Amino acid sequence: MEILIDRSSPTPIYLQICQQVRGMIASGALPPGFRLPPERRLAAALGVTRGTVLAAYRELRADALVDARVGRGTSVLAQRFHAQPSPAGDVPWNQLFRAAAARPQDPLVRDLLELSERTDVVSFGIGLPAPELLPVSTLHHLLDEVMAEAGAAALLHSPTEGHTPLRETLAELMAARGIRCGPAEVLVVSGSQQGLDLAARAFIDPGDPVVVEEPSYFGGLQAFRAVQARLLPVPADEEGMRTDVLESLLRRQRPKLIYVLPTFQNPSGHVMGLARRRRLLELAASFQVPVLEDDPYSELRYEGEPLPSLKALDEAGVVLYLSTFSKTLFPGMRVGWLVAPRPVVRQFALIKQSSDLHSSTPGQFLVERFIRRGYWAPFVRASRSAYTARRDAMLEALAAQAPEGMTWRRPEGGFYVWGRLPNGVSMTRLLGAAASAGVTFLPGRPCFIDEPGGEFVRLNFSHPSEERIRDGVRRLAAAIASSTERPRAGTPAPIETRPIV
Amino acid sequence: MEILIDRSSPTPIYLQICQQVRGMIASGALPPGFRLPPERRLAAALGVTRGTVLAAYRELRADALVDARVGRGTSVLAQRFHAQPSPAGDVPWNQLFRAAAARPQDPLVRDLLELSERTDVVSFGIGLPAPELLPVSTLHHLLDEVMAEAGAAALLHSPTEGHTPLRETLAELMAARGIRCGPAEVLVVSGSQQGLDLAARAFIDPGDPVVVEEPSYFGGLQAFRAVQARLLPVPADEEGMRTDVLESLLRRQRPKLIYVLPTFQNPSGHVMGLARRRRLLELAASFQVPVLEDDPYSELRYEGEPLPSLKALDEAGVVLYLSTFSKTLFPGMRVGWLVAPRPVVRQFALIKQSSDLHSSTPGQFLVERFIRRGYWAPFVRASRSAYTARRDAMLEALAAQAPEGMTWRRPEGGFYVWGRLPNGVSMTRLLGAAASAGVTFLPGRPCFIDEPGGEFVRLNFSHPSEERIRDGVRRLAAAIASSTERPRAGTPAPIETRPIV
Repeated sequence: MEILIDRSSPTPIYLQICQQVRGMIASGALPPGFRLPPERRLAAALGVTRGTVLAAYRELRADALVDARVGRGTSVLAQRFHAQPSPAGDVPWNQLFRAAAARPQDPLVRDLLELSERTDVVSFGIGLPAPELLPVSTLHHLLDEVMAEAGAAALLHSPTEGHTPLRETLAELMAARGIRCGPAEVLVVSGSQQGLDLAARAFIDPGDPVVVEEPSYFGGLQAFRAVQARLLPVPADEEGMRTDVLESLLRRQRPKLIYVLPTFQNPSGHVMGLARRRRLLELAASFQVPVLEDDPYSELRYEGEPLPSLKALDEAGVVLYLSTFSKTLFPGMRVGWLVAPRPVVRQFALIKQSSDLHSSTPGQFLVERFIRRGYWAPFVRASRSAYTARRDAMLEALAAQAPEGMTWRRPEGGFYVWGRLPNGVSMTRLLGAAASAGVTFLPGRPCFIDEPGGEFVRLNFSHPSEERIRDGVRRLAAAIASSTERPRAGTPAPIETRPIV
Repeated sequence: MEILIDRSSPTPIYLQICQQVRGMIASGALPPGFRLPPERRLAAALGVTRGTVLAAYRELRADALVDARVGRGTSVLAQRFHAQPSPAGDVPWNQLFRAAAARPQDPLVRDLLELSERTDVVSFGIGLPAPELLPVSTLHHLLDEVMAEAGAAALLHSPTEGHTPLRETLAELMAARGIRCGPAEVLVVSGSQQGLDLAARAFIDPGDPVVVEEPSYFGGLQAFRAVQARLLPVPADEEGMRTDVLESLLRRQRPKLIYVLPTFQNPSGHVMGLARRRRLLELAASFQVPVLEDDPYSELRYEGEPLPSLKALDEAGVVLYLSTFSKTLFPGMRVGWLVAPRPVVRQFALIKQSSDLHSSTPGQFLVERFIRRGYWAPFVRASRSAYTARRDAMLEALAAQAPEGMTWRRPEGGFYVWGRLPNGVSMTRLLGAAASAGVTFLPGRPCFIDEPGGEFVRLNFSHPSEERIRDGVRRLAAAIASSTERPRAGTPAPIETRPIV
């Protein structure tokens, strides 16, 4: 397998590799089953970084030209299909998409999901539950019951608002979280990402302002950007969103929505204090701005006392509460839920109807049965205990290994350690060095709006095992150390212009 | 249970009934388990139509105050929850929703779905497959295998574009439909409704024109209206969309998309002829307008020779092909797919990522296995044979029972008989009379854009059994006969202003 790299070409090197391998597969030079060299070896042979080869192989996988299976490396797939693509014609698709849609969005989640599947990479990059904790046999058994008892009903349509018994069960689950609601105030959604999307589509016209914490969950920012919201970041400190800044903002602007993750915030891990919670609700009620409370993590508290959710404290009826089973039970069936006043549930259901009619029927039957049978509380307890150990493993490994100047927070719950890199680390270099070292993380950048955020990293500890956490922190520490730029002599330190919120 | 109707009140009667029953439940006057009187009896007692009582009970069900179970009537649910709603405050939600979203959309699908679940109503209203045909035990068995073999992988995240083995299997299925594509040109969607939504969000800015057939699928119209498209209807005749009208339109307008259901069109059942198909593609290629081909029904042909899909004939690469398992296999797991040029798959995947991350993982595993094991072709053959018998039962019943002046088409495939009512039938009266008689249908109105369409009805024959089809046609014929208005003597015939396309 001979590959020629042209370093003077404007085509990125990973695409050069990808194109040449694609040509060899199309011509039959690389037959089905042929194993491509391991990334590390090819990288060494070509004199490029491992990240470059990784990116090339990722493209080939996306085209279903090769497949990477655990322990078998990357091999050429049988091209049962025509090697030449179907007529792509000369249609200028990028001109045909709407201007807002064609704006290249950040494919970061997809790339991180993909990298996290590789066994040779320690993934701190994405917020997944531990696969080992998944109660597969219980769920298998319950699914078996559902199919035997409900039969066709479990495979047919269910109401747009959700399977009624599940809505009832969720209303009871809410009572355990201190939230009083009836099933008519519950809307089942296809994962909480859909809840964010529905909120964006229900409230936001292009240019409408939305208040968000800075930093915030990038999937939320993505949903608001998709409807061309104008994001108004409010800085967060150890006590969460700064309500003094929010107040001065509300006196000058008329946001359509305040988006906030008050408990074990993603990415920072912050918990909004009780006084701030009350003040936020006062402001929202007095300015009549709905609050979208995103709460995927509150059940996963490892120390300290629980605080009431915004929804539980909400006397004015301004809070829309969003939660999900993706961070606790499983993400694959796309089951989340919204608790909101009935006019909101109605409006969201109308939009949901034209988006996907309803959420997966068997998924809803399964979750309902899992909770009703009493599996939920012990499962959450077991998760808490496992994640406490993983968090501690990460904190200990960081204390032992992190390079001088790096700082991080000890989170009381949730999925993430939020860290700040030592001065002088180049994020571009670090991303390459980490990929070469076989470790991923989420760079802070996509979680910020106005601030650069380039010095932050989000490290997930729920997905990898304790042993892999220790291994990954070692790899990361080495990558950071090798990515530090020395300030050039004679060059003045760059001036950073910080926008005023 | 005493209910007082105030006919002079501006509150609709069904809401008066609903509010009084709600009050009695809240006060405990109607305890949990209390059976509400059958609709027919309450309607007679109050001197209102059965449709009015049906609407009131539907509201109560939506509030989870009562439950209607097959054979048990409607009974009061245990109010485990606070009877008083959680604080709804004084938030003016309808002012807070964006203007476009707050526009009341048509909740027709939801209402029809709900009515179709009642065993005492013969539903010709919605396009559902026959529940008896659903291969429950095979699917149960395959799901069992999936859980045993794939375990956690079947419950975790899958790629936004779809589970790779399913994309490969779908590419092979496409070959059987004469469409050459590779898995990279396949995007798995959460039902074809999501495909319509993604197309709308990828191509349409508010005010952008979209060409649609008139009449057309109302779920498609709904998806385009949700993004504020300007719908440009092109009339269809027995040969499908009139390409001469399309051509003159394309000379004057610049639509962003042409939306068409060429085979067993919903609602009309028309099949676009081969010459028209070729002409449509020529026009689309020459004006560079993408064609969204919606093809849920083409496998369900009961007579005549299959025609190639637009996608199979497409040499310019302008066709986006959308199909689904909801009309054949099952609708509950929300699995549909799009075949399109790769730039389109990429763009749609980015929008899908921020909408729901990905489609149900176990649903994708299950469908993939069902096809790979060879269950698909025999299942479709069995469905064809059952639906042929049901179509014939409906055509025979109509021939025997339909009132004079009513006409209808014999469809060669698909799910619907498209009928035209005799002159002088009031649709408003007919909807009430049909609900009272215990039969539903889809009125033509929501399928039209400019034309009134009030004289058309869409009758589904795939869902009810042959016996119920005969019973339902009898009920419908009687309802039509009782809803005919005599033209008033001395009043001139109304002038209908037909908009020019």
